[in-house]
Amino acid sequence: MPDPKDFRPKARRPRGFQDRRGPGLKAERALVAKISAVYEAWGFEPLETGAFEYADALGKFLPDQDRPNEGVFALEDDDAQWMALRYDLTAPLARFVAENFDQLPKPYRRWAAGPVWRNEKPGPGRFREFWQCDADTVGSPSPAADAEMIAMACEAYGALGLQRAQYQLKYNDRRLLDALLESIGAPATGEGAQQRLRVLRAIDKLDRLGAQGVSLLLREGRKDESGDFTEGAKLSADGAKAVMDFVEIGLAAPKERVGKLERLFAKSEGLQAVYRELAILADILSSLVDAEQAAFDPSVVRGLEYYTGPVFEAELLGDADEAENKIRYGSIGGGGRYDDLVARFTGQKIPATGFSIGVSRLAAALEKQAEAADGPIVVLPFDKEGMADCFGFAKALRAAGLRAEVYLGGSGPKAQLKYADKRNAPVAVILGGDERRDGTVTLKGMKLGAEMAKNVSDNKEWREGRPAQSVVKQADLVASVQRMLTE
Amino acid sequence: MPDPKDFRPKARRPRGFQDRRGPGLKAERALVAKISAVYEAWGFEPLETGAFEYADALGKFLPDQDRPNEGVFALEDDDAQWMALRYDLTAPLARFVAENFDQLPKPYRRWAAGPVWRNEKPGPGRFREFWQCDADTVGSPSPAADAEMIAMACEAYGALGLQRAQYQLKYNDRRLLDALLESIGAPATGEGAQQRLRVLRAIDKLDRLGAQGVSLLLREGRKDESGDFTEGAKLSADGAKAVMDFVEIGLAAPKERVGKLERLFAKSEGLQAVYRELAILADILSSLVDAEQAAFDPSVVRGLEYYTGPVFEAELLGDADEAENKIRYGSIGGGGRYDDLVARFTGQKIPATGFSIGVSRLAAALEKQAEAADGPIVVLPFDKEGMADCFGFAKALRAAGLRAEVYLGGSGPKAQLKYADKRNAPVAVILGGDERRDGTVTLKGMKLGAEMAKNVSDNKEWREGRPAQSVVKQADLVASVQRMLTE
Repeated sequence: MPDPKDFRPKARRPRGFQDRRGPGLKAERALVAKISAVYEAWGFEPLETGAFEYADALGKFLPDQDRPNEGVFALEDDDAQWMALRYDLTAPLARFVAENFDQLPKPYRRWAAGPVWRNEKPGPGRFREFWQCDADTVGSPSPAADAEMIAMACEAYGALGLQRAQYQLKYNDRRLLDALLESIGAPATGEGAQQRLRVLRAIDKLDRLGAQGVSLLLREGRKDESGDFTEGAKLSADGAKAVMDFVEIGLAAPKERVGKLERLFAKSEGLQAVYRELAILADILSSLVDAEQAAFDPSVVRGLEYYTGPVFEAELLGDADEAENKIRYGSIGGGGRYDDLVARFTGQKIPATGFSIGVSRLAAALEKQAEAADGPIVVLPFDKEGMADCFGFAKALRAAGLRAEVYLGGSGPKAQLKYADKRNAPVAVILGGDERRDGTVTLKGMKLGAEMAKNVSDNKEWREGRPAQSVVKQADLVASVQRMLTE
Repeated sequence: MPDPKDFRPKARRPRGFQDRRGPGLKAERALVAKISAVYEAWGFEPLETGAFEYADALGKFLPDQDRPNEGVFALEDDDAQWMALRYDLTAPLARFVAENFDQLPKPYRRWAAGPVWRNEKPGPGRFREFWQCDADTVGSPSPAADAEMIAMACEAYGALGLQRAQYQLKYNDRRLLDALLESIGAPATGEGAQQRLRVLRAIDKLDRLGAQGVSLLLREGRKDESGDFTEGAKLSADGAKAVMDFVEIGLAAPKERVGKLERLFAKSEGLQAVYRELAILADILSSLVDAEQAAFDPSVVRGLEYYTGPVFEAELLGDADEAENKIRYGSIGGGGRYDDLVARFTGQKIPATGFSIGVSRLAAALEKQAEAADGPIVVLPFDKEGMADCFGFAKALRAAGLRAEVYLGGSGPKAQLKYADKRNAPVAVILGGDERRDGTVTLKGMKLGAEMAKNVSDNKEWREGRPAQSVVKQADLVASVQRMLTE
């Protein structure tokens, strides 16, 4: 091992972690701020738990001695307890509620935003640290709590500037799917499990393949346009019909769908109760958002092992393609009812429902807005004597609500203008010897002048009649900059 | 080991970590938002690095096999590299700059806010995870960059609502102290180290003990009011005089202090250069903040091993005590110039200066403001039939810019009012059978009515002539609530 004093580590980011900066990061944080402002407005209070939980509280037992980090980042504390970084925001909530149940208002509504960590193999676009922004209601079994989650999610996406046509909320109920799959002999475990998976995958494709395509996948299989054959779930004709009766509800007009469930499940006492809850959910939801924006959809099959009732999914939609179908970009959030999580600790079943927005994916989708964002106004002291004056100009600009900074490097005019360009400054304020003598500053519109700056070699050359710049009295600085920004 | 299915973990927070919620957490996040808005306004751009760095990049080499977590939380990645959670925001910045130097604007100004982790023994008020909010300028050797840090910190504290009399910025320069300590034969290492520590501790006490007290501590020692004796640094008379000449500069009027340095260090060529830089710093600073708000102070001795030039410290002050001295609550931020950090990686010296605000300590100091914060308006469906209407009321209140939520539990009026109380709701909106029949709602001012709610046992009793409530038409709900809030 080299002498530590001579040792020079290589500067490198750990695998699977990101450095984020500038406008992109700002846009992502603004997104979290907007979502949480909606959560706040709906009466949710913030909660921040520590980054670590005890491994047993996260649902992991003693980590495997050979692979102690399987799935999570775990380490042994000095009192021999295993701790792990949280992999989501729901498990810490369950621990917090179990630990503090008596002190909490009931129902307890909380939102949380922050990084979560997954110890997975990193790959392109797959990170081991990313942000979630969640809202959960703990202690209410009411379908009103589920309706609230869906409506609030709609409002959150709206607050981010998404238009109605750009996203859609869909909900289903895992109890319906469970009953359906049981009735056709495809239970969660044992021999039916593989068949169940094929059925769920087929249901998931209703949007893309239509009823005809799903029907084929429920029976023997389907050949696509390219000639590839996908093996089917091999259901009986009766089984396939039962599934199709359910799935085809998704082809009805959004506001008619829940009603159709009643007839479908008329024979089952248990499912009638589920239907009544969904009807209440749909009723409350319809008072808050359009039926088109948030509709029952039998093709939502996400995360079924985890949830115990309604499940929600939000999808980002693109512009219509030639066939008038919206292009789907995939899930930008989801959630559902989970009534068993707190019971892990206390044995007591506590009903809970929640919604989680995947901030990173949404941010990527909205990135273009961020790229256009301007940097601060940059004040350039072309000679050193002007430094204190430059700080005064920046101060005056900030007092007017603008962002402004002074160039602090030791380089000359050319490098200073390059710097302003790199900072994405809309305007550069220049103070050289002439300006100081005359009590003026030179203002340069950087967007118009960006091309020219590349060819500037010195102060003098630069001054010769550039169109995107003007000389103004120092007293008029703020007003002149504001005018340039609005032009 | 028990069967995992039967295992019930005890819900418990890991040692040294916090759960924070509600108004306190909101106040802390608002504090970070306000500070970072100031950093943004001054042209600093955000940077967020991952929670982990490679251990060697943090300045730790291979963790001790017996105590791999000494000081930091470290774990071995599956490619056998040791990673550790960041213990501050400066070390990741140095790594980021070294890794991306060519792509960055120079100087590179960045701010960062987030948790840092220290693997220390937890104790009362000592946490292993806490937030910092930093600004740094990398690549400028100019004293203007240091002046900017101090002035910007003043503006940040002002943005948090601190009055001028509530805080003070102080700066010093480690090169002055180093030269002084060398000149009296108390170098950093070897035999002088113990003496040096005593001298620094004595200097640090100027505020409390005055010149007389410091003098005693520099020579043989000092007996305090209780009779306890503190052993002194045992300097020679000449040595003590040299230190006192420097320390007594702190007793001069703030704007005269830097000038006095020139005469003191007239004989030393090297210190004249330091003086000139401090004079530029003071000059620029005086154009941005009052001399009283941010003054040179020879008693600032913080973090000397780390810094290479100017050092800054911000102190929270309380009200004046009887002797007219401000009560000092201690450091709420600090920083300084560190020119060696990036060189660890590249060998190339890159000048840098920064300021770090300790968010948690500040938040505790400002907590009282947070405690007064109101919760959302709570809408109470006294019977279930009113649920959808209640959601409509909450929606209307939110549309008027208020926070509003619907009670989602299954309990009766008494528990509902307790819930509204626990949520710190300023107003409860009540919809019972009578109100639904009449198209009205009952509004209850919760602050006035908080005492009474404790004795309410049922809906009917509650209705009988409470003073802090009124019945209004549903159409007048929003206007009536707004009126109650302003009263």
